Amino acid sequence: MIIDCHGHYTTAPPQHDAWRKAQLAAFNDRTTLPAVPTMSDDEIRETIEANQLKLQRERGADLTIFSPRASAMAPHQGDEAVSQAWSRGNNDLIKRVVDLYPQNFVGVCQLPQSPGAPIANSIAELKRCVEELGFVGCNLNPDPSGGHFDSPPLYDRFWHPFFEAMVELDVPAMIHVSGSCNPAFHATGAYYINADTTAFMQFIEGDLFKDFPDLRLIIPHGGGAVPYHWGRYRGLADMLKRPLLSEHVMRNVYFDTCVYHQPGIDLLFEVIDVKNILFGSEMVGAVRGIDPQTGFYFDDTKRYIDALDISAQAKRDVFEMNARRVYPRLDAILKARGL
Amino acid sequence: MIIDCHGHYTTAPPQHDAWRKAQLAAFNDRTTLPAVPTMSDDEIRETIEANQLKLQRERGADLTIFSPRASAMAPHQGDEAVSQAWSRGNNDLIKRVVDLYPQNFVGVCQLPQSPGAPIANSIAELKRCVEELGFVGCNLNPDPSGGHFDSPPLYDRFWHPFFEAMVELDVPAMIHVSGSCNPAFHATGAYYINADTTAFMQFIEGDLFKDFPDLRLIIPHGGGAVPYHWGRYRGLADMLKRPLLSEHVMRNVYFDTCVYHQPGIDLLFEVIDVKNILFGSEMVGAVRGIDPQTGFYFDDTKRYIDALDISAQAKRDVFEMNARRVYPRLDAILKARGL
Repeated sequence: MIIDCHGHYTTAPPQHDAWRKAQLAAFNDRTTLPAVPTMSDDEIRETIEANQLKLQRERGADLTIFSPRASAMAPHQGDEAVSQAWSRGNNDLIKRVVDLYPQNFVGVCQLPQSPGAPIANSIAELKRCVEELGFVGCNLNPDPSGGHFDSPPLYDRFWHPFFEAMVELDVPAMIHVSGSCNPAFHATGAYYINADTTAFMQFIEGDLFKDFPDLRLIIPHGGGAVPYHWGRYRGLADMLKRPLLSEHVMRNVYFDTCVYHQPGIDLLFEVIDVKNILFGSEMVGAVRGIDPQTGFYFDDTKRYIDALDISAQAKRDVFEMNARRVYPRLDAILKARGL
Repeated sequence: MIIDCHGHYTTAPPQHDAWRKAQLAAFNDRTTLPAVPTMSDDEIRETIEANQLKLQRERGADLTIFSPRASAMAPHQGDEAVSQAWSRGNNDLIKRVVDLYPQNFVGVCQLPQSPGAPIANSIAELKRCVEELGFVGCNLNPDPSGGHFDSPPLYDRFWHPFFEAMVELDVPAMIHVSGSCNPAFHATGAYYINADTTAFMQFIEGDLFKDFPDLRLIIPHGGGAVPYHWGRYRGLADMLKRPLLSEHVMRNVYFDTCVYHQPGIDLLFEVIDVKNILFGSEMVGAVRGIDPQTGFYFDDTKRYIDALDISAQAKRDVFEMNARRVYPRLDAILKARGL
């Protein structure tokens, strides 16, 4: 079984985006927020079958851990009430996709974060999504400001109430920022990668996993810059008198395979233990074109892994077993189906 | 000849740091800024011979392109007048090192940037350092705020006056941030790498090198996350309908080899043309320890390049000829010596 741990609903029907626009307009005009728009199952099917499902079939993935469009989470737009309504609407839409294609998708939720708001305010939506909607994890935004990086580091006690809830629910989080409102940062070309790199370094600096030994966090986009600079991070841990990364960070942190060329994937597998790598494609996502050097889609990351000279067991771990370990609620769903 | 393009004077005599402290204290107290402290040639010699010169000899480098300590440039501390005095003092100190060891060091200057100040205000110090002190380049800080990334992107016209001066003087800049005042960013573990990645993406987004075809910029730390995500950047250039990176960016941009493990260096040379790579070590710098996996210093980057299976000509280019091409004033100095 091939589980893609990183897929976004980037192709929702147009009334979903129109609703967001109306919502932000209402916020600016201080009028009542608009109600969630109606959309038929067929409208949703159309957007999924022409995109995510088509690509799953073409590329040979079986199941995608599916979440709302990351760049549109945009907690820096509107206020906390707007973010609550938008998150709820987004998560409910993911739930509809999962209900239409339960074999192909499992849900991961967006959180109603808002700059300056306590992270505890996101716990209720996490619980609703996990306990009522059957979701298996969440996307946690380390910088709800949209590019100012003014939240406390992830090891700060600020985040503890949420991590406690995650551990209690036994769900992991993917650390994932949203769109950038900072002109210095292109969202998918700089902001995402910077946030990934930053999170990892924060894990080195702090003692988060001493406080939460059962917490599991996925750093997307192949771990940002980290595998390429693995020597730097090992060296910095040493200079900062932190334990070895294998003990201090890598019992709790996982990287996905959203790295869009063979040499990058080769490096990832050379320096990072297979147990810490989850197959992911980020599709339909950041980079949608065909690589002229290979003739295949940049984000068809399964091809790069297929090409690796690693054992069949290692491939099975990356494609399936690691995800089932990191997302135990997904494992339970699959086991209930006899898988 | 082995030219290290990236070395900082991180080991200056203690009165230099004491001067900085007094300077910032005077700024806070609104009193007169203190005068540059006296230090003897012997005091300078001692700090260089025990550190940079010792390591040059041990590791087999001949000449270091040498600049003030990057993390201490800190243009976000004090105001522009403080930054002017501090930059001038730092650059004059580099000049003293170069005069003491002209065979071993050539100068690159810090700029008196200050958050919000026009970059044109840094031109005079650049000219002084190049024309009067014989420096061959500069370190340009894309984020003088120290971690807020609130300056215009590097393709913005904001930066044009400075790039015009660089082209006129025929000197390159290394794009290098300083210390971080943002608790989210560890300086050498997150901020540096993020700034590198961000700069590269800005070059993709803009048309800087159409405006300045002769501009040469070095992105340090192996180009941040860029080589690891080379497929993403090729794909984003395509999605954004930019020209091929080889034409759009890589005629003007160079990466150094400050990547502290063999697999990272292997990747760098696999995806980036040799003509765009300059040998650099960042020593004595970010990571000072010995890699327990190899028994050698993490930042002894020459070893990684020596181990590459590339031609002797490629090695000569990376160790010497590329630096002479990117820093023509260095080339002129060496030619005048018959080298």
